[in-house]
Amino acid sequence: MATNIKVGIVGYGNLGRGVEKALKQNPDFELRAIFSRRNPDQVAAAQGVVHISEIEKYKGDIDVLILCGGSATDLPEQGPELSALFNTVDSFDTHAKIPEYFEQVNAAAVKGGNVSVISTGWDPGLFSLNRLLAENVLPEGKEYTFWGKGVSQGHSDAIRRVDGVKNGVQYTIPVDAAVERVRNGENPELSTREKHLRECFVVAHEGADTAKIEAEIKNMPNYFADYDTIVHFISEEELKANHGTMPHGGMVLRSGRTGDNNTQIYEFGLKLDSNPEFTASVLVAYARAVYKLSAKGESGARTVFDIPFGLMSPHSPEELRQRLL
Amino acid sequence: MATNIKVGIVGYGNLGRGVEKALKQNPDFELRAIFSRRNPDQVAAAQGVVHISEIEKYKGDIDVLILCGGSATDLPEQGPELSALFNTVDSFDTHAKIPEYFEQVNAAAVKGGNVSVISTGWDPGLFSLNRLLAENVLPEGKEYTFWGKGVSQGHSDAIRRVDGVKNGVQYTIPVDAAVERVRNGENPELSTREKHLRECFVVAHEGADTAKIEAEIKNMPNYFADYDTIVHFISEEELKANHGTMPHGGMVLRSGRTGDNNTQIYEFGLKLDSNPEFTASVLVAYARAVYKLSAKGESGARTVFDIPFGLMSPHSPEELRQRLL
Repeated sequence: MATNIKVGIVGYGNLGRGVEKALKQNPDFELRAIFSRRNPDQVAAAQGVVHISEIEKYKGDIDVLILCGGSATDLPEQGPELSALFNTVDSFDTHAKIPEYFEQVNAAAVKGGNVSVISTGWDPGLFSLNRLLAENVLPEGKEYTFWGKGVSQGHSDAIRRVDGVKNGVQYTIPVDAAVERVRNGENPELSTREKHLRECFVVAHEGADTAKIEAEIKNMPNYFADYDTIVHFISEEELKANHGTMPHGGMVLRSGRTGDNNTQIYEFGLKLDSNPEFTASVLVAYARAVYKLSAKGESGARTVFDIPFGLMSPHSPEELRQRLL
Repeated sequence: MATNIKVGIVGYGNLGRGVEKALKQNPDFELRAIFSRRNPDQVAAAQGVVHISEIEKYKGDIDVLILCGGSATDLPEQGPELSALFNTVDSFDTHAKIPEYFEQVNAAAVKGGNVSVISTGWDPGLFSLNRLLAENVLPEGKEYTFWGKGVSQGHSDAIRRVDGVKNGVQYTIPVDAAVERVRNGENPELSTREKHLRECFVVAHEGADTAKIEAEIKNMPNYFADYDTIVHFISEEELKANHGTMPHGGMVLRSGRTGDNNTQIYEFGLKLDSNPEFTASVLVAYARAVYKLSAKGESGARTVFDIPFGLMSPHSPEELRQRLL
């Protein structure tokens, strides 16, 4: 525990604040700076906030940058740019663009002599790890991912764009019956509708036509039309009081067969009170692995598939073998 | 998939037979020989069986030996001996002796220039991985392991040693209420009795005093006295018909806290129709990692904590990133 891993946080939204809290639970880390695009005077953080334009001055003083920007516009720029200068870790989560992002970050990191672990968090991240481990040990089988119960930011945004809607929150909910069929080894073919429910809590503007809003939500293509969707109309006060947190979670299951047609069920699940705080905790653990890989002289991009769990621990291999194996 | 990893199986009990079956699900492997201490003519295997005394002749022709002996007496000898000659993988599971075993295998493997992954399987193995990953990402928290529902060989043996008992099988069963308390984030302190039940199916000799047998089982120190134990007396036919398989499984849970006292529940579980076939499947996946590490020129003992999941896969890193991340 004597090491002191000096880190910087890039981006101070929900995820950046989560990393700041997670670092307090990991005494081998030292937070050196929070970098923001906003005017540092207007960012309320316990730690000193530095404008992102100053970041190059911190080269040599920061072991790992923890990138907390969004995957839509922040990381596609910041990832390659900053991995040329620093060791980095991020939670880039646009699944379809991961191969392309990996190549860009890898080229920059190799050139800069840095290590960058991309796409950590829980999905991608811990869920991906479980898909891979499950398929490694059960090559004949079928994999199922269920998300929720949890707040989907994208679907909540979609509700809020509907005419007459003042505010709204959408929960993605796995269908219990479908989960049970998988657990029972039935290997079902499940349609989109059979896997997840969508439950919406909507605040309508005064005088708005709630029947029309409900129909518009339920028939929205891509977001809701393929699902059974429940719409509740509630007051703004009720929304604030009961739907203000960001829980999430889900399950990865694999139903495999071995030998003489024996069913082997593999299940991983998370039930998270705070989605951003958990993602932040995963980022910090992988930042430790980044630090160790860089200290060994490695460079380039890595994913969770390349990182042994021992590297993410502050404890010695001897202690881990004795205590956890 | 073009690689052809040449393997030998050492020991042809339930586990060795499981490995033979698992290899058929993994086309990048080729089984070269099964080594046994028994007279090869008396071992019923599809593959040619070779007496263990001949094993040195296979040096150079086998990439990885998969050790399928028991942890009590076979592996403490075979592990260090064979890792001096071959790359090996095993499922050594005497938790308390793992550090000592690791050192012995490591010394032999380093000397022989081989790679040996010890203590794979599901506990130690996949359960250990989950204990470590969960603690890495949730350093403030409490870990719980539940085993079952499954057959405990040790407890079944203990029943069969009781006077008047002809045969018997014991199931270890997690107490649902305890599991639910953990899942609810209560962080309970659980006694041995609160965590697991023990259910015994016993065949008594004709005329034996079943009340005495039941009392003797329930009061047996270490094995049953600290648990709520249920004893059923059944016929030999019923035992054979309904209790002849080796199911097992269990759960690793971690109940963690992050940030502003948010509860984060991490859960991993297995429900296995065949304990030995699943353990065998894990051995085969780690044999692939052993092969790759040895090809990279590494040597020495490793555990599951040192092996990234990508190394256990027959697929390329590019494909894994695209398909599973």
